[in-house]
Amino acid sequence: MKAAYYQGTKSFSIKDCIPQQPRTDEVRIDVSHCGICGTDLHVYRGHMDERVNFPQIIGHEMSGVIAEVGKGVEAFAIGDPVVVRPLASCGNCPACHAGHRHICQNLNFMGIDSPGAFQTSWTVPADVLHKLPPNIDMKMAALIEPLAVACHDVRLGQIQADEKVVVIGGGPIGMLVSIVAQSKGATVILSEINPFRLNLAKGFGLDPVNPTQQDLLRYVEDKTGGAGADAVFEVSGSESGAEVMTELPRTRGRIIVVAIFPEPQPVDLFRFFWREIQMRGTRVYEPEDYEEAIVLVASGALPLEKLITAVQPLEELPEAFRSLDTSPNHLKILIDCSG
Amino acid sequence: MKAAYYQGTKSFSIKDCIPQQPRTDEVRIDVSHCGICGTDLHVYRGHMDERVNFPQIIGHEMSGVIAEVGKGVEAFAIGDPVVVRPLASCGNCPACHAGHRHICQNLNFMGIDSPGAFQTSWTVPADVLHKLPPNIDMKMAALIEPLAVACHDVRLGQIQADEKVVVIGGGPIGMLVSIVAQSKGATVILSEINPFRLNLAKGFGLDPVNPTQQDLLRYVEDKTGGAGADAVFEVSGSESGAEVMTELPRTRGRIIVVAIFPEPQPVDLFRFFWREIQMRGTRVYEPEDYEEAIVLVASGALPLEKLITAVQPLEELPEAFRSLDTSPNHLKILIDCSG
Repeated sequence: MKAAYYQGTKSFSIKDCIPQQPRTDEVRIDVSHCGICGTDLHVYRGHMDERVNFPQIIGHEMSGVIAEVGKGVEAFAIGDPVVVRPLASCGNCPACHAGHRHICQNLNFMGIDSPGAFQTSWTVPADVLHKLPPNIDMKMAALIEPLAVACHDVRLGQIQADEKVVVIGGGPIGMLVSIVAQSKGATVILSEINPFRLNLAKGFGLDPVNPTQQDLLRYVEDKTGGAGADAVFEVSGSESGAEVMTELPRTRGRIIVVAIFPEPQPVDLFRFFWREIQMRGTRVYEPEDYEEAIVLVASGALPLEKLITAVQPLEELPEAFRSLDTSPNHLKILIDCSG
Repeated sequence: MKAAYYQGTKSFSIKDCIPQQPRTDEVRIDVSHCGICGTDLHVYRGHMDERVNFPQIIGHEMSGVIAEVGKGVEAFAIGDPVVVRPLASCGNCPACHAGHRHICQNLNFMGIDSPGAFQTSWTVPADVLHKLPPNIDMKMAALIEPLAVACHDVRLGQIQADEKVVVIGGGPIGMLVSIVAQSKGATVILSEINPFRLNLAKGFGLDPVNPTQQDLLRYVEDKTGGAGADAVFEVSGSESGAEVMTELPRTRGRIIVVAIFPEPQPVDLFRFFWREIQMRGTRVYEPEDYEEAIVLVASGALPLEKLITAVQPLEELPEAFRSLDTSPNHLKILIDCSG
């Protein structure tokens, strides 16, 4: 078998290695596909070296088939198509006790804090698996993880049919949040500056706005009769996003902070007071979000295939990261690990 | 009759004037008492001169007795003790249509945008009145308006019995939020730097902390078994308050922004993501908050009398504003308008 090891800033090596036999309550999965996440790109750029104990196998947006089961595993069998929900929680911290295991205060995010899925064979605890329906497309199934993020964001954002939603930032997660919100019956304005992504959004029936060419605030006010948006998703992680997000919601409107902001941002707290705006941060997903994402992928109802701009074999992973880091015309690149 | 006119920065004049006869659907109230609000102090300091069209009679934390009723007023009669909920909404904006009349997009806040209660006789529309129970103490009744603010904040903050709450800032509103949250069964840590207020808080059975002398974050973690607070009210309006407010909540904990921040503040949005923190702004009150505040004042259950640090006649209003502006040992000063 082969694995891709992150070796420090912008460096990977692909090496032969020995499959790890599953221990009690573990399974070994033959990985089919694994997408490159924005977080993987942060790792690649060296921004997370304090957290990632390299050399490390990263990657967590995967699909695969069970190849071997350890003792005690009864819910899964060899040949089952599965995805991994890559969160190992401690079970003992206040967050776990409160039922918020997905944001455990000692969370082990598999593929960052421990080995991940950019390898042909991945051994994981069985309790992080979700079984897939038969005949699901395994390429599409590699989108279940980021789609589950979007399902979580839209669920906590309490998006209802006929609501007017603004999504700031049209990367993979912003795009998925947009199409999930749209599938709930919301009208979605997507704010994005990249022409390739704006064009893609248009094809999805979203309402794309380039805020460098158009006054986003006025556009949203015009579209909402002066009320403002019901909900605003900040997915850009940009200073300008943090600035405009408070201008857009209606009275008692909601802001959902999806993006990761490494530094504190100037935020207009007066606007929160003035319009009684609500904001919540959302992070990863809970099991029910995975189940929703699986149903959505299996149904074929969303235009997910168009989000995939390349599929490359594991050997070309370094090149795939380079393209994603430099080309404005990529959105989601999948690594084919079936080798 | 007499009225106090704000004349520009730190200047009031007390003048004789003619009572304004109530028109259709209006009443004239003989004002009993009117408290000086933090907003009145902002006006006094000249910070709101663009909004306040002076000379202006300000003041809105009042109690009084109906002296005269206009045509069409049936729900109120001469002699009724009342308080005014000083919000005149337009009824036509998106906020009003959405049922958020208290934060109408064209709100007329009586006592700021139009004449207020620092006068012996005040004529207002009958639809902003709340009737008081007989024999209520009219000094205490002047606290109903700020108490309704606190009831609104605690209601929207969804404070439950046995929750651990932190209130940042122990001015009149912070103190009222603290004792209302406490009356719901919450344990309240009050962060404040003024020794007079810390001492007062101690007398109320709150848990006062001076963050310049003690590590507030560590204190809250110790008191919550490492979990963090269920809810944090930011009532200080300070940069340090905006900084610490995101450090204190538990996973999915709530921040309630009560304070008015004139400028955007650096806010740790990463923490919102990391702990899925929720935040909401709260502003003024709705009718049900007034009704709750009236019941609380009438019941005598809260130690409200101790919040009143002076009662001064209308003629001494300029002196009262001077004391409140300069002395650290004042909390709420009432103006006796009964002349």
